[in-house]
Amino acid sequence: MPENSPVLVDLKFIPREVEEGLKCAFPGREVINLADPAQKTRDLSNIAYAVVWKSDPDLFSRAPDLKVVFSGGAGVDHVLTLPGLPDVPLVRFVDRSLTTRMSEWIVLQCLLHLRQYRAYEAQASARVWQDLSQPEAADITVGVMGLGVLGQDAIRKLQVMGFKVAGWSRSAKALDGVETFDATQLDTFLTKTDFLVGLLPLTAETRGLFNASLFAKLSRKGPFGAPVFINGGRGGSQVGADIVAALRDGTLFGASLDVFEEEPLPSDSPFWDMANVFVTPHVAASSDVRALFTHVEEQIDRFERGQPLQHLVDRKAGY
Amino acid sequence: MPENSPVLVDLKFIPREVEEGLKCAFPGREVINLADPAQKTRDLSNIAYAVVWKSDPDLFSRAPDLKVVFSGGAGVDHVLTLPGLPDVPLVRFVDRSLTTRMSEWIVLQCLLHLRQYRAYEAQASARVWQDLSQPEAADITVGVMGLGVLGQDAIRKLQVMGFKVAGWSRSAKALDGVETFDATQLDTFLTKTDFLVGLLPLTAETRGLFNASLFAKLSRKGPFGAPVFINGGRGGSQVGADIVAALRDGTLFGASLDVFEEEPLPSDSPFWDMANVFVTPHVAASSDVRALFTHVEEQIDRFERGQPLQHLVDRKAGY
Ligand SMILES: NC(=O)c1ccc[n+]([C@@H]2O[C@H](COP(=O)([O-])OP(=O)(O)OC[C@H]3O[C@@H](n4cnc5c(N)ncnc54)[C@H](OP(=O)(O)O)[C@@H]3O)[C@@H](O)[C@H]2O)c1
Ligand SMILES: NC(=O)c1ccc[n+]([C@@H]2O[C@H](COP(=O)([O-])OP(=O)(O)OC[C@H]3O[C@@H](n4cnc5c(N)ncnc54)[C@H](OP(=O)(O)O)[C@@H]3O)[C@@H](O)[C@H]2O)c1
Repeated sequence: MPENSPVLVDLKFIPREVEEGLKCAFPGREVINLADPAQKTRDLSNIAYAVVWKSDPDLFSRAPDLKVVFSGGAGVDHVLTLPGLPDVPLVRFVDRSLTTRMSEWIVLQCLLHLRQYRAYEAQASARVWQDLSQPEAADITVGVMGLGVLGQDAIRKLQVMGFKVAGWSRSAKALDGVETFDATQLDTFLTKTDFLVGLLPLTAETRGLFNASLFAKLSRKGPFGAPVFINGGRGGSQVGADIVAALRDGTLFGASLDVFEEEPLPSDSPFWDMANVFVTPHVAASSDVRALFTHVEEQIDRFERGQPLQHLVDRKAGY
Repeated sequence: MPENSPVLVDLKFIPREVEEGLKCAFPGREVINLADPAQKTRDLSNIAYAVVWKSDPDLFSRAPDLKVVFSGGAGVDHVLTLPGLPDVPLVRFVDRSLTTRMSEWIVLQCLLHLRQYRAYEAQASARVWQDLSQPEAADITVGVMGLGVLGQDAIRKLQVMGFKVAGWSRSAKALDGVETFDATQLDTFLTKTDFLVGLLPLTAETRGLFNASLFAKLSRKGPFGAPVFINGGRGGSQVGADIVAALRDGTLFGASLDVFEEEPLPSDSPFWDMANVFVTPHVAASSDVRALFTHVEEQIDRFERGQPLQHLVDRKAGY
């Protein structure tokens, strides 16, 4: 394998942004952008590195000599399910900008629900000027499931905004000023939680976790009388039909969903126009392509110098 | 004046919340709630204390013996313009909960604009799944006008969320990590500002300040190509017609308005349904009535012990 192996890029992002980002990326190295139709039939053997986000299923059969696979995002479920994934290191994307963006989205969604955005919006469209009884952030406990890079940053910012916070993760964690719970303590965590935030990877263990039975265990003692569900993790961790039913029967007061079991969200999904539901098209924390390529350059550099790769995925745990 | 003078309460808040709040307030002291029709014709002489928010104009002629006037909110323009205001100390309301609520509103509005809420909402109602190029908080400079209790708290939280921040106030201020400007440096401050946040009191100097000529000086170099105006202070500081014109001709990209020159906002106001405008009915930071009464109790206590009152208003400066 030559030191300056080309880099394969297969990113289903905004194409113009990828092209822009590639202009100055990977100096001294050929880049094969699979979005370019000219590369459709190109021989991809003898290529060591691939940066991928929602690749076509034939990627690994076309590129049999990969030495490292880089995920274009923080999650890797989209790679782990690709056929023929070679047994090589899989590196995920961890980045200040991505983390900050997710916390923007989480704090925005918590504030939309706290500040009764939809009720005021309905009043405004009826041109009604009326103040509503208004809880403050300190009246709400936001429970965050997933205390990784994203969950920890979101929790810190929610705390600064005045929310009470609790956190849940597979292994026990100690975080300043946060009541934390491990995998065995899920029910206790849920009974304390008014706004539930999902920031979990999609794995065999988390698939379908956000379902009717979980929603029924959330606190109903908060100021809105029923809990809110906010998912910025992965759609496969939720059961959409259960969310719809829970919203309709009042088990849930509201929801914010960036991710769905089927994406794009089908146009006949009820989520698009439910009363207290906020939908975004899997954009909570898009990867900054420049930052992504810088990160990949750094990791390739480490790999070629024989240093350990960072942000390696534990294939068995699935994240 | 007897030590246990009654307290006059004239608060145009949500009536039920005032009644609830009064249940345990001012122990050992009579409370005269002017919202109670039975008090309509009551003799209000020999009363030392009044807690007021948007009082009727005859208040001070009916209650000629006041020794201290307490504003039910952080602002005092509503008191200073009442006829016959006696030359006695005027105390404003400063409170953790009120401050936190204002910062909730400011951060929410900044995030709504940053995260292109209205563009995604329009896509959702057309059931379009499409990611938009997305700047992050660090790409935006939020310039806050008014660096008092509220402005300083908002700035700190905007910083934590990742925004760049700048601040402007009458007198020079030194705030950690914030570029600050004094009254003479307004134009320099404006050229740096992508999102302009107003947290000023209404005074002779601030009346009409947010007008066409000011909007024209704001930065157009930000990621949205035009600035956003967010006002949580007082409607009298803005020129509504100029905001409408600036939104229509692209001088402003968007606006968030909690306050208006005329409140309630008239039903024929264009603000109610302009494309990138968020309207709330002067609820950005409602006073928590329990906290308000506790604060008034404390100040009365200080006054009767001969200690100096806190949060005194400078009548000449107007805030
Ligand atoms: N919507 C978007 O735009 C977007 C953008 C980026 C990322 N994401 C999603 O966000 C996820 C989280 O990202 P991250 O960087 O924070 O990941 P991370 O650092 O790997 O953290 C994952 C967290 O989830 C916990 N966890 C995993 N499996 C669990 C289980 N079975 N039970 C309980 N806790 C479990 C982990 O527990 P331990 O701490 O015990 O390991 C850890 O705290 C990503 O995997 C991705 O799917 C979405
Ligand atoms: N919408 C709502 O629900 C709501 C709720 C509460 C309050 N408010 C409004 O918010 C305002 C601010 O509250 P606050 O507690 O932060 O007040 P504050 O502590 O008195 O601070 C006022 C700030 O404005 C600055 N300022 C005043 N006049 C100025 C002028 N002519 N030029 C430049 N700067 C000037 C002051 O400068 P210096 O530092 O140099 O004195 C100070 O930094 C209140 O007066 C009220 O009108 C609105």
